[in-house]
Amino acid sequence: MQFETLSDIHAALAAAPKPDATALEAAELRNGQLTKPPAALGRLEEVAIWYCGWRGNARAQIDAPQVIVFAGNHGITAQGVSAFPAEVTVQMVANFEAGGAAINQLSKLSGAKMDVHALDLEQPTADFTQGPAMDEAAFLAAFSTGWGAVDPTSDLLVVGEMGIGNTTAAAAMACALFGGTGGDWVGRGTGVDDAGLARKADVVARGIAANPEARSDPLTALRCLGGREIVAMAGALAAARANCIPVILDGFICTAAAACLEQARKGALDHCVAGHLSAEGGHRKLLDAIGKEPLLNLGLRLGEGSGAALAIQILKGALACHSGMASFAEAGVSAG
Amino acid sequence: MQFETLSDIHAALAAAPKPDATALEAAELRNGQLTKPPAALGRLEEVAIWYCGWRGNARAQIDAPQVIVFAGNHGITAQGVSAFPAEVTVQMVANFEAGGAAINQLSKLSGAKMDVHALDLEQPTADFTQGPAMDEAAFLAAFSTGWGAVDPTSDLLVVGEMGIGNTTAAAAMACALFGGTGGDWVGRGTGVDDAGLARKADVVARGIAANPEARSDPLTALRCLGGREIVAMAGALAAARANCIPVILDGFICTAAAACLEQARKGALDHCVAGHLSAEGGHRKLLDAIGKEPLLNLGLRLGEGSGAALAIQILKGALACHSGMASFAEAGVSAG
Repeated sequence: MQFETLSDIHAALAAAPKPDATALEAAELRNGQLTKPPAALGRLEEVAIWYCGWRGNARAQIDAPQVIVFAGNHGITAQGVSAFPAEVTVQMVANFEAGGAAINQLSKLSGAKMDVHALDLEQPTADFTQGPAMDEAAFLAAFSTGWGAVDPTSDLLVVGEMGIGNTTAAAAMACALFGGTGGDWVGRGTGVDDAGLARKADVVARGIAANPEARSDPLTALRCLGGREIVAMAGALAAARANCIPVILDGFICTAAAACLEQARKGALDHCVAGHLSAEGGHRKLLDAIGKEPLLNLGLRLGEGSGAALAIQILKGALACHSGMASFAEAGVSAG
Repeated sequence: MQFETLSDIHAALAAAPKPDATALEAAELRNGQLTKPPAALGRLEEVAIWYCGWRGNARAQIDAPQVIVFAGNHGITAQGVSAFPAEVTVQMVANFEAGGAAINQLSKLSGAKMDVHALDLEQPTADFTQGPAMDEAAFLAAFSTGWGAVDPTSDLLVVGEMGIGNTTAAAAMACALFGGTGGDWVGRGTGVDDAGLARKADVVARGIAANPEARSDPLTALRCLGGREIVAMAGALAAARANCIPVILDGFICTAAAACLEQARKGALDHCVAGHLSAEGGHRKLLDAIGKEPLLNLGLRLGEGSGAALAIQILKGALACHSGMASFAEAGVSAG
């Protein structure tokens, strides 16, 4: 699908389907009959039922997960916001393609198909301290790429990213969406020191000042302060919704992309669960802002979709129990 | 191995091996060269290195995990401490054997062999409010069963349990080991109401009073206040250590069994990682007492080894990254 105006995106968000009420009810009923004390599987019960609702199947399982890693380059790197040089983006894309990155190992472990989309790496977005990162054409192209990257036959989606400088872009987006200062949202990213952290906070403040329109509209915040890979993530999240494909959200950058959709249309993330709490500074606050509680909290701050890909294993465990366990009646076990 | 005296157990704990220093160092070195910012995989890095040390292999992977579920019956059920009747223990053993329980699904998902050991279910332990739950012969037999249940060719161990009434037994053990009142350690178990919770706290207090020797020695606490399945868990944990098999600890009851070993011999749990934080009341305090931080916190409170079996997936993810990722040099990526 090619999006030609911002209105096309708003229309797609407005047309988003809801979970299957019949499957949801049947999954809840089944959960109550399984051989365990009520609620003894904690959040596993909640996510299993949620997944079944979206898949329209009271005993759904994950058979065809897809992981998509989007990569983009950021003009903002000129401001010294990263511990790594900008060339690392293209080098890491080669590493993804050769199978050597963390996300390759985690995708393989979870049986996920992994796709990599590098978006115009030779053409970084503009430095957003000087004005919008992207014009509307570049924004719509990236959103369309993200939308088109989703395999409609998959049954679970994880989107990850690679883009030196993109924790600063995500912090600026969060600041535009939810207010506060640059310092409230920046973190150490790939590992900047205290001076680097202060520089990031300043860059965010200058980015907000240079893009006043970003505060008035969430998709404009995404265009003015995001990057091509972040916009593509948002496009993929919206496409997953259109296809009733549940999503596990990754860390700070993925959540910032997701938050733009939620702010543009309340409920736009009902098909998403938060995979993990990143160690990146602003992630907890961003998750709170969109009302999501992470499944994992293991101090990851790598991006690439790594935390979400790891959380596929948790969702698989939840569904294995939900679909495979015997009921009290089947097992001849006395209920409490 | 048949343990014939308490001294035999102390001797086994004293003879416990340590991790392989060479493999540990090589695993740490490897971790520092992988294509990610330093520490960006958070706790995954720590557990991968820990596992490699115990397996004596800097690129170790999990190929043969074993899950063992021990079951036992408790005289203490006469005091009304559970929301379920005591017959459920034997019914759930049949469910384990038929493949219908949560632990069956989670073992299968992680590729683990699952064994079930029912310990003299027709002969519940004595009601510990009246005196010791077990005599020394019963205690040593259960410990020996647990030790013998461990497959020395496995490369990871999870021990789980089933025993109506056993959260009360575990709370009494924790109280004997670490002090405080019954109320500090009891939780809702399979789902008792407020009156049931108060009854459990009272039963713990009476159990401590009836078994003064339990406060003087951790293995005696296990004998006087535990159950056959809890003693067997301790035996299996000790056997795993003797075979350099890393362990993922499960919830409250498993941790109480483990804590007896740690109190009997400091460092006895160096081969163990805490799989999850149970929703059962005293678990956080018990983990703090043995200095372990759980990998997962998903509100599970089922026992059976379920939380630990789910955490196998996390450890597998950690090792997949550690053993499979390319180094900066191999991938041609610029280090920061």
